[in-house]
Amino acid sequence: MFQVSPFDSKLYRQLLSDAATADRLGDAAQIRTMLRVEGELALAQAEAGLIPGDAAEAIAQAAASLTPEPTSLADGVASAGVPVPALVKALKAALPGEHARWVHYGATSQDIVDTALVLNIREILIDQQARLAAVIRALADLAEAHRNTLIAGRTRTQQAVPMSFGLKVAQWLAPLLNHVDRLEALRPRLLRLQLGGAVGTLAAMGGKAVDINERLAHRLDLVAGPCWHTQRDSLVELSGWLSLTTGTLGKMAQDWLWLAQSEVGEIRFSNGGGSSTMPQKCNPVDAEIIVAMARTSAAAVGQMHQTLMQEHERSGSAWTQEWFQLPQQLMASSVALNHAQSGLRFIEIHDQRMRANLDACNGVIYAEAATFELAHAMGRDKASELVTQCVREAMQGDRHLLQLIEDRTGEHIDVDQLARQLVAGGATGRWLTDILEQARLKTATP
Amino acid sequence: MFQVSPFDSKLYRQLLSDAATADRLGDAAQIRTMLRVEGELALAQAEAGLIPGDAAEAIAQAAASLTPEPTSLADGVASAGVPVPALVKALKAALPGEHARWVHYGATSQDIVDTALVLNIREILIDQQARLAAVIRALADLAEAHRNTLIAGRTRTQQAVPMSFGLKVAQWLAPLLNHVDRLEALRPRLLRLQLGGAVGTLAAMGGKAVDINERLAHRLDLVAGPCWHTQRDSLVELSGWLSLTTGTLGKMAQDWLWLAQSEVGEIRFSNGGGSSTMPQKCNPVDAEIIVAMARTSAAAVGQMHQTLMQEHERSGSAWTQEWFQLPQQLMASSVALNHAQSGLRFIEIHDQRMRANLDACNGVIYAEAATFELAHAMGRDKASELVTQCVREAMQGDRHLLQLIEDRTGEHIDVDQLARQLVAGGATGRWLTDILEQARLKTATP
Amino acid sequence: MFQVSPFDSKLYRQLLSDAATADRLGDAAQIRTMLRVEGELALAQAEAGLIPGDAAEAIAQAAASLTPEPTSLADGVASAGVPVPALVKALKAALPGEHARWVHYGATSQDIVDTALVLNIREILIDQQARLAAVIRALADLAEAHRNTLIAGRTRTQQAVPMSFGLKVAQWLAPLLNHVDRLEALRPRLLRLQLGGAVGTLAAMGGKAVDINERLAHRLDLVAGPCWHTQRDSLVELSGWLSLTTGTLGKMAQDWLWLAQSEVGEIRFSNGGGSSTMPQKCNPVDAEIIVAMARTSAAAVGQMHQTLMQEHERSGSAWTQEWFQLPQQLMASSVALNHAQSGLRFIEIHDQRMRANLDACNGVIYAEAATFELAHAMGRDKASELVTQCVREAMQGDRHLLQLIEDRTGEHIDVDQLARQLVAGGATGRWLTDILEQARLKTATP
Amino acid sequence: MFQVSPFDSKLYRQLLSDAATADRLGDAAQIRTMLRVEGELALAQAEAGLIPGDAAEAIAQAAASLTPEPTSLADGVASAGVPVPALVKALKAALPGEHARWVHYGATSQDIVDTALVLNIREILIDQQARLAAVIRALADLAEAHRNTLIAGRTRTQQAVPMSFGLKVAQWLAPLLNHVDRLEALRPRLLRLQLGGAVGTLAAMGGKAVDINERLAHRLDLVAGPCWHTQRDSLVELSGWLSLTTGTLGKMAQDWLWLAQSEVGEIRFSNGGGSSTMPQKCNPVDAEIIVAMARTSAAAVGQMHQTLMQEHERSGSAWTQEWFQLPQQLMASSVALNHAQSGLRFIEIHDQRMRANLDACNGVIYAEAATFELAHAMGRDKASELVTQCVREAMQGDRHLLQLIEDRTGEHIDVDQLARQLVAGGATGRWLTDILEQARLKTATP
Repeated sequence: MFQVSPFDSKLYRQLLSDAATADRLGDAAQIRTMLRVEGELALAQAEAGLIPGDAAEAIAQAAASLTPEPTSLADGVASAGVPVPALVKALKAALPGEHARWVHYGATSQDIVDTALVLNIREILIDQQARLAAVIRALADLAEAHRNTLIAGRTRTQQAVPMSFGLKVAQWLAPLLNHVDRLEALRPRLLRLQLGGAVGTLAAMGGKAVDINERLAHRLDLVAGPCWHTQRDSLVELSGWLSLTTGTLGKMAQDWLWLAQSEVGEIRFSNGGGSSTMPQKCNPVDAEIIVAMARTSAAAVGQMHQTLMQEHERSGSAWTQEWFQLPQQLMASSVALNHAQSGLRFIEIHDQRMRANLDACNGVIYAEAATFELAHAMGRDKASELVTQCVREAMQGDRHLLQLIEDRTGEHIDVDQLARQLVAGGATGRWLTDILEQARLKTATP
Repeated sequence: MFQVSPFDSKLYRQLLSDAATADRLGDAAQIRTMLRVEGELALAQAEAGLIPGDAAEAIAQAAASLTPEPTSLADGVASAGVPVPALVKALKAALPGEHARWVHYGATSQDIVDTALVLNIREILIDQQARLAAVIRALADLAEAHRNTLIAGRTRTQQAVPMSFGLKVAQWLAPLLNHVDRLEALRPRLLRLQLGGAVGTLAAMGGKAVDINERLAHRLDLVAGPCWHTQRDSLVELSGWLSLTTGTLGKMAQDWLWLAQSEVGEIRFSNGGGSSTMPQKCNPVDAEIIVAMARTSAAAVGQMHQTLMQEHERSGSAWTQEWFQLPQQLMASSVALNHAQSGLRFIEIHDQRMRANLDACNGVIYAEAATFELAHAMGRDKASELVTQCVREAMQGDRHLLQLIEDRTGEHIDVDQLARQLVAGGATGRWLTDILEQARLKTATP
Repeated sequence: MFQVSPFDSKLYRQLLSDAATADRLGDAAQIRTMLRVEGELALAQAEAGLIPGDAAEAIAQAAASLTPEPTSLADGVASAGVPVPALVKALKAALPGEHARWVHYGATSQDIVDTALVLNIREILIDQQARLAAVIRALADLAEAHRNTLIAGRTRTQQAVPMSFGLKVAQWLAPLLNHVDRLEALRPRLLRLQLGGAVGTLAAMGGKAVDINERLAHRLDLVAGPCWHTQRDSLVELSGWLSLTTGTLGKMAQDWLWLAQSEVGEIRFSNGGGSSTMPQKCNPVDAEIIVAMARTSAAAVGQMHQTLMQEHERSGSAWTQEWFQLPQQLMASSVALNHAQSGLRFIEIHDQRMRANLDACNGVIYAEAATFELAHAMGRDKASELVTQCVREAMQGDRHLLQLIEDRTGEHIDVDQLARQLVAGGATGRWLTDILEQARLKTATP
Repeated sequence: MFQVSPFDSKLYRQLLSDAATADRLGDAAQIRTMLRVEGELALAQAEAGLIPGDAAEAIAQAAASLTPEPTSLADGVASAGVPVPALVKALKAALPGEHARWVHYGATSQDIVDTALVLNIREILIDQQARLAAVIRALADLAEAHRNTLIAGRTRTQQAVPMSFGLKVAQWLAPLLNHVDRLEALRPRLLRLQLGGAVGTLAAMGGKAVDINERLAHRLDLVAGPCWHTQRDSLVELSGWLSLTTGTLGKMAQDWLWLAQSEVGEIRFSNGGGSSTMPQKCNPVDAEIIVAMARTSAAAVGQMHQTLMQEHERSGSAWTQEWFQLPQQLMASSVALNHAQSGLRFIEIHDQRMRANLDACNGVIYAEAATFELAHAMGRDKASELVTQCVREAMQGDRHLLQLIEDRTGEHIDVDQLARQLVAGGATGRWLTDILEQARLKTATP
């Protein structure tokens, strides 16, 4: 009955959600992972000699097999404002008294919730990294294939100068390589155990506190160390990473929307949404959703930064605010990555239309390239002057620039040759090659 | 399995959701209301003579009885990017061919989704208005009861001058009265039929277009008129209203957090969350959640304004962005109103502690009031000079200002009398009365 | 030396600022208006009998003639966190001691800053309302002139169905009419005196508090009543109004960007920025800036909602946050309105290109209209079937839909006639007329 | 006359601005640095053999000596939407024709603006890094000095368990160490040359394009490589870094506000703003401004993420949006760092008040520590049971927990000894030491 966010809707799930990510974020996953943390905590405490070994074993087993109905805990969540007390109560109820007393020993609710969150995020990021690599590879292939395809470079909505479509694709790709590096750097800051007890001192664990913190971190393959109950910088850094990723995909998708317009028609998506009454329509659904995810995540990242201001040792209200942003950002990235993969699968490149659009303004977009071409024969200054005159004529009349040049000079400039020169000259070749090489290196499976 | 937003979580539903609102926003409600719009559209079109009456009857009946599983439509939603084509297909499948052809005749998907949204919002707003009135009444009662209760007025985190706690409460209330007015003004702009056809011209309904638009509006009790597919100003205005409301409650709740601190202790919530290992704790859960809702809604309103930029006649990506903000804002307001009601039910006013805190700094906070008091006997200038000296002494030593004054002048200033004068003087009485009178008028049931 | 915001830059001032608005928001305007409030406060207090009449006269005169250098007050601002103490000190220094003591009597800094802000906002809004009316009138003229100009209605970036360009323009205009109403409703909530003294009780003004509040409000032509030091809802409502306005203009400007693309070319701005090396360029600067203002203001409105949470009776930090948003939003609206006026002055409508673009896809966009046309002769079903076949052929081949129909039926459908029918049918005529009539009424000078 | 942002106000400059940062962001700095880029570009092009050496020398000299009035360029900025064409025109006017023609050769406006921005950011970041190190060192000293000072750990606004104030300070510090690492990682991604020509291909520089790009990068000590006209991820990453930094300071400042409240009084700022009529006031201005900067920067980072969606090869409107956010964020960080240094200079630690506040609730906050203490003698279970009983009594009556324990057991628990144990036990000592060691390492001058 509850589908306030489209991410949670059964109606929109294929369009606006991702099952694998939802499985890591939903009630069941949260409960399962929190129970796992409670179990591992007990085992770590037994290792360190703080609690009896058999109690720890019993707790870990009960934690592994308990699957409480979320609704059965809802009352407890409502009165405490956090899910852990009700969960601990349920776990204790599944144990004999002498073991039950050692459940959640010396820990605080936020220790469990945050550690479980980090564990679930780790799995989601593994998944997203793989999808990101797949997107990078697909873009690299597309860029390579269209190294020599000419398209109008466009600035400020206007055709500017012709360029390689392959380079344009490589530019979509380039920031994704930075994101791979950023994720690598973020991981050790993010994948940290949260275990600080009531106020971040682990006082209730006495002299064994540091030892237990390290043992639990080791068991969960997280980084040990000081608690970060109100030091949320790495979660906020993650929020930024998620939005940088969707934003980069969003820039690409926005370009897709512009390129797929009826009047531009340089790309088309063969899976585009149609209309029975408007047969010409091919709605670029993948691109639309990616842009929507990007802007939605951008809004969330601003709010995540607001939540940095958590007062004192633990904040009820600032912490709660995170819950409404970070999971949805995680989902937004998964959804955007899915639609990016889909879009790249169904994209059709209409290179003839790209070429035709270059002639839209009687070919004046070739002015610079034509000047280069003519300069071989007549010198740069003369070539420049001549082209300028022909451009003026082309702008006012209805004849093509290259035709006008030919009329005046007898020099036939072949458009294909011009195109070849355009993608060969300047920095296009080198930069394209560099980006694709980086893409290969950063997505190589070790 | 899908609970990416806490609003949709079974675990958090008592704490962070509201069943009545969720019932108006979930998949089932959306489907039900969209079907209703399709049914009413057919009836309006039959009235206007555009489609056969028996077809309209059949469509309306089928629409009323159809309850498709959301998941059964998910594939269609994914390919179209909107839920309507799949729904229309299901509706047509429930009808004989000669009627089916008149389903959704001349309408566009967004007509149906938007009109259904408006209808569901209307119900939610009726509900929220009632809760808002209840909060206003509870605050008015509290303000009236504490008209003469003295509390430290605090500015920039520091005690400033004593004031009536009743006036402080009335100030929480005052903006809510503006929100009642704002909602009244917003309604006719918001509760408008969306029926424009493919590009907002209703061309497919020919000469009967305006007539059908008006008839359907009449049937649904909405305002007729031009379509607003990409004119989203009233939805964004609603977004602002929702956030203004949660923000006002959030300001109150933030004050609650400050007043309920261990060291201040002027209020306490008898339903506060406790801790087995920290018996002194009484976590102000209601207040925390209200603040969380306020800041979450504030983030959403910024994003809603971003979505104003919908290109051309209908925008896939900008429209989709709304879906991630507005429903969650509607829910945030319901949740905040619930917790405001709860907080006002369980609040305990510790007026003795308020009084004690006023003496925190040896009573120098009474300086101004004491000067007024002494001025009757010795004139303003002399009184002022004397009090200034006593204040200096009180600040440095450990004696109370009123005691120091008594020592010097023999004049005993009774604190209770001072308190009475403080709440009687200035504008307190008049403004408090005015606000409560307005509260009475604006929440009166007609 | 200080130009951290482009609004304050001399370099960008013609592009990104507005002199009239800056004059109402700068240091000099703030100081001048705060001094005015101090002067009027003294006069109101004298009227009410609280302070001596000659002191009030002297204060008012000194306040009117004092023009302190902003930098001379900067030290005092830094230590107090607000500008008023330093200003009051300067004002007192300009008066003999017996008058000086009555300066700022019983008021608090925020009373002066907020009231001055409201007074300056009032002037800015008068100005913006006039510009808004001018934009509305220009749009109404454009809509009227292009009532019968056909353009492709576009949905989800794809050509959908032809429509009247006049109606498209009217749709840009329609929300602006709502904004006129919203401003009217907002004014009495916004243009309120701020006079509450230290904690909003006006205690220091004793029994004359309410009288003085009313007299000062009367003198400044503001609404009297309870103070609103931490009740910022009307400022936030203003923030929303400003962003709704820029957002509506932003939607229009975004459409301009799409329509002015090289490949679409349906509009062009004769003042567009050019390039010496790219002669074909005509950068739509006005449109770009309007969109930039809209998104910038949208970000600010979110942050303004965050500032609703002002703790207790006055908040240093939340209040300061407003200063970074609201003035820039006021400026953003003025800048956007300027560029809207400029854009409407320099816009060129290329109706032939609009018509040509309609034929982009072999005229299948006319399918619906052609069906209507044929239905007169052969009935709706047969017409529909025939057109569907011809559309299929047009989509796959290179022949125009109307030609294909003529081949099959001998029926010549004239495009011009089709266009006339398209703008005459549906709701276009009525809705366009209604919107223009409202525009006339709401911009009529009384 | 233009001071729409407080960052640009003369009135507020001591409170809300920073001269060194403003000098890097103002019109003069922008012009100066853009001219430097033009000069260095010419020299790099001469090195590579693209333009004549004497022309390059002349251009570089003219660029170094030219100081055009910003207002003289404003007209040109307005018509082009960017400052470079007018600047290039001024530079050409200062040169003989044969040299002038080589100015800005093959570059685009955005190349110059972006490279100049990066150069100015580099200087600001050097400055901020030094201030950040100073804040870290001051916090480390404070933490070390208060290693053994006991304070109430507070969670969800309630006193929870006692802790070391030194650890609390170290927790303010810890995220700043991450920010040092983040800045190090960000630098090579951010400090990149922008040189791509019209559409990012450097086509106009022909075969020398890559060589010139590398030479110019070398001359400016920036990273060479592909242009990033619409790949803004590193600027947005910077935006996130700036807001993470202000947010961490904001969390600390928010704690300051809570700790400096009249009723808490555990810290006080000797430079606090006062009030003549309220002598007890000591407004924590530094803390207020830091929080204001943090929330202002948080709003900006959300908007910066929105600007990732820059269409095609250069976007007029998305790029312009950056100009309203990033410079203000740079300034916000400088201002926040200044106030953090000031706050740490003027902070007074009232450790007696910290101790007194621990007794607020009859010392029940010591329950856990007392149990530990008693367990030595009587075993954990018995100790726990006994303390629980005493806590219950202490909560209801007016006697101190430790007194009640002594009454029952004859065991005198010394508060000072308890305090020593509290800061010695748990993880406090180790974590504090670790953080301070990291602080030493990361602020060591090489």
